[in-house]
Amino acid sequence: MVIKNKWERKSLIGLEELSEEEINLLLDKAKYFKKLKSLNQKIPESLAGKRIVNLFLEPSTRTRIAFEVAAKGLNADIISIAEKSSSLTKGESLRDTARNIQSLGADAIVLRHSSPGSPLFLSEIVEVPVINAGDGAHEHPSQALLDIFTLREKWGSLKGKKITILGDILFSRVARSNIWGMLKLGAKITLSGPSTLVPKKMEDWGLTVSYNLESAVEDADAIMLLRIQHERQTETHFPSLKEYSKMFGLREGEFELKKNALILHPGPINRGVEIDSKMADSSQSVVLEQVSNGVYVRMAILHFCCNGKV
Amino acid sequence: MVIKNKWERKSLIGLEELSEEEINLLLDKAKYFKKLKSLNQKIPESLAGKRIVNLFLEPSTRTRIAFEVAAKGLNADIISIAEKSSSLTKGESLRDTARNIQSLGADAIVLRHSSPGSPLFLSEIVEVPVINAGDGAHEHPSQALLDIFTLREKWGSLKGKKITILGDILFSRVARSNIWGMLKLGAKITLSGPSTLVPKKMEDWGLTVSYNLESAVEDADAIMLLRIQHERQTETHFPSLKEYSKMFGLREGEFELKKNALILHPGPINRGVEIDSKMADSSQSVVLEQVSNGVYVRMAILHFCCNGKV
Amino acid sequence: MVIKNKWERKSLIGLEELSEEEINLLLDKAKYFKKLKSLNQKIPESLAGKRIVNLFLEPSTRTRIAFEVAAKGLNADIISIAEKSSSLTKGESLRDTARNIQSLGADAIVLRHSSPGSPLFLSEIVEVPVINAGDGAHEHPSQALLDIFTLREKWGSLKGKKITILGDILFSRVARSNIWGMLKLGAKITLSGPSTLVPKKMEDWGLTVSYNLESAVEDADAIMLLRIQHERQTETHFPSLKEYSKMFGLREGEFELKKNALILHPGPINRGVEIDSKMADSSQSVVLEQVSNGVYVRMAILHFCCNGKV
Repeated sequence: MVIKNKWERKSLIGLEELSEEEINLLLDKAKYFKKLKSLNQKIPESLAGKRIVNLFLEPSTRTRIAFEVAAKGLNADIISIAEKSSSLTKGESLRDTARNIQSLGADAIVLRHSSPGSPLFLSEIVEVPVINAGDGAHEHPSQALLDIFTLREKWGSLKGKKITILGDILFSRVARSNIWGMLKLGAKITLSGPSTLVPKKMEDWGLTVSYNLESAVEDADAIMLLRIQHERQTETHFPSLKEYSKMFGLREGEFELKKNALILHPGPINRGVEIDSKMADSSQSVVLEQVSNGVYVRMAILHFCCNGKV
Repeated sequence: MVIKNKWERKSLIGLEELSEEEINLLLDKAKYFKKLKSLNQKIPESLAGKRIVNLFLEPSTRTRIAFEVAAKGLNADIISIAEKSSSLTKGESLRDTARNIQSLGADAIVLRHSSPGSPLFLSEIVEVPVINAGDGAHEHPSQALLDIFTLREKWGSLKGKKITILGDILFSRVARSNIWGMLKLGAKITLSGPSTLVPKKMEDWGLTVSYNLESAVEDADAIMLLRIQHERQTETHFPSLKEYSKMFGLREGEFELKKNALILHPGPINRGVEIDSKMADSSQSVVLEQVSNGVYVRMAILHFCCNGKV
Repeated sequence: MVIKNKWERKSLIGLEELSEEEINLLLDKAKYFKKLKSLNQKIPESLAGKRIVNLFLEPSTRTRIAFEVAAKGLNADIISIAEKSSSLTKGESLRDTARNIQSLGADAIVLRHSSPGSPLFLSEIVEVPVINAGDGAHEHPSQALLDIFTLREKWGSLKGKKITILGDILFSRVARSNIWGMLKLGAKITLSGPSTLVPKKMEDWGLTVSYNLESAVEDADAIMLLRIQHERQTETHFPSLKEYSKMFGLREGEFELKKNALILHPGPINRGVEIDSKMADSSQSVVLEQVSNGVYVRMAILHFCCNGKV
């Protein structure tokens, strides 16, 4: 296998199709941006004059703002369209909307959409790069890259590390993207949560499924929690919040964790559900570092996909 | 008649009051901006330090974003207020709202409003330029200018060209502005559509009204479709969508069009209603060019009204 | 008492804790910015590279836009989050939201919130400056500073001037901030309005309460009206609008005002309720100057709190 040292993709759809080298290329660039910032040095305005459109057709403030901040950090112009049923999309297909945005002079489209596959579909229609900012339960590559960035920064490498992903795996694009990325970087993954949300069949991907939380977390180097998304689950998949919290919530002192085990959460945290406040705010938690790293990772994504110079 | 070669208006309210020379002045400036872009040359930052406020009191994403892109393209600051019933307008008249915006330091106000005449009213109250981005069923000058720009670019001149406007003329500000502009530039206009939406009396404007679609389109050099706006029409004016589509929808192979006839649509397209997908995506369709040209036309409008240098 | 000549606060929570010197420091800086603008001189880009987040968790267009304009005027980047129940805050505490915003790289947070005390609470959690843009019925310091700026500009000094604040004092953060500030600058304050909304007990603050509008306004150098906020008052506190207007509305010719008495209103004006149109638009009204001055005052606040150079 030839090692790619240059980014050759137009769009970023998911981590499934990225090679280990491509993932590292993005992470290295993000690391470089973070270093410049920490040294109070100016980040090159590598996207000056570029126009990026945030097309968020599913509600999201957090990811949208992170992309805005990242784009401005490279001096790109960014226009956010964040509407569920805007006049833009009224009686118009996603295809027409996207081609219109391209005609308005967009140099890239960052798309959040409730339908899996829509960023891929779009990338085949428009000529400009499409960056997936979350498509249904499919992928959320920028989130997974920032999670992996955070772990790599702490550990140097993910190779051989044990990572437990806990919660609603079945409906989680965050879990899916992380699984692809972490496996490529050599991590050992255990999935845990209610059996209705963590099908045993996922072991086919080369990981472990465990319904016993204690054994799933006791020797983990990192525990990644997922947000319980009340709005997506049906009663057939999900017990009550109280029951979930009791069985799968991470509470201080309840389990023996490794001393240096890291705790990740993509936010927003449901305190008292997936995790209690003591754990969420402990020194093991890297939740706020994830947010901060997310800006640099998104800068790297925009930089490469938009053909940023320098 | 003296040919004006300098823009002397403060505001742009409609095409009704513009002379042929003024229209061409705007179109020539837009052409100049488009040429610079195509040559990858820097467009002069002629509005640097200017502050433009998009005051959109009727929903619109498309036009609002086009004005945002245009303003940023000339390096103006733009602030968009896009709310139907914002706290800004709560218990406050349009007059007070506009004078407040002026006091905040706006150098121009781009207004979309559901009431015909509101941009004119505003332009008499505030000292800064007011640009009409659509006022009820009255005018939508930037849309008509981009339509005319697109045709002029293809043909060199509109003089003697046959243009058929098809659809809901009665309630359409797009049609109204286009009729004013196209007649001034010497085009021959035919209006067609259901008789309830295309009153015979419109012939007083110096154009032809025809209720026979076939004869209306067969020798047209361009066919401009209008968007069917379900929300505005009452049952007394409008047949069912299905009936409309059957009688006045443009479908491939159904009518003999001129070989080089151009098809325009202001978007968003109701595919299968006003036009079928084959026609909308055919080589005769200039729909996406219209969108793209709209940015340059709006740059020209902002440039002249805000007294842009260079 | 030592005169401070340098700003030493991180955050701006209210006027209650500011000294006379600090208030004058802010007003002098605002005066300087206004002078530069009037001379058409470039305002120093003292916040270039700074990232300010407008976190408006209570509806407001007016104040939000004024802060946007002010931030851009000093060349800061500003990101506005203006949602009542955004995905940002879904299932997340204000504390988590704010720490996330800080992690995204914000250099300051401008907070509007319905709960009194939330900006103070926030300022103790995050490391970046927090600027109170209105917290419940507690304080609205930037509004009071612009009111005071406007009076100081007209009079040179507030010392010994008689100012009557009229209306819903009980629920008004604007009144509260103004009372703190004006008393510190040596003004004599009279409060007037319905007794349910202007408790006699407020005299403890060192001011006069009068339920007789005529005597309250006849020798006032300035009359500050407050907006009647239908949405906040209960029936037990508030008579009907008609009754309020009849008893406490300012109508031309009804009362003998001092010849040069100034009329202030924070907007938006309910014409015909708190004040009639003739008075609102008279030469005594400084309503639009208040709006305009608000930009310079907010520039001064951002400049000092964000450690602006120059």
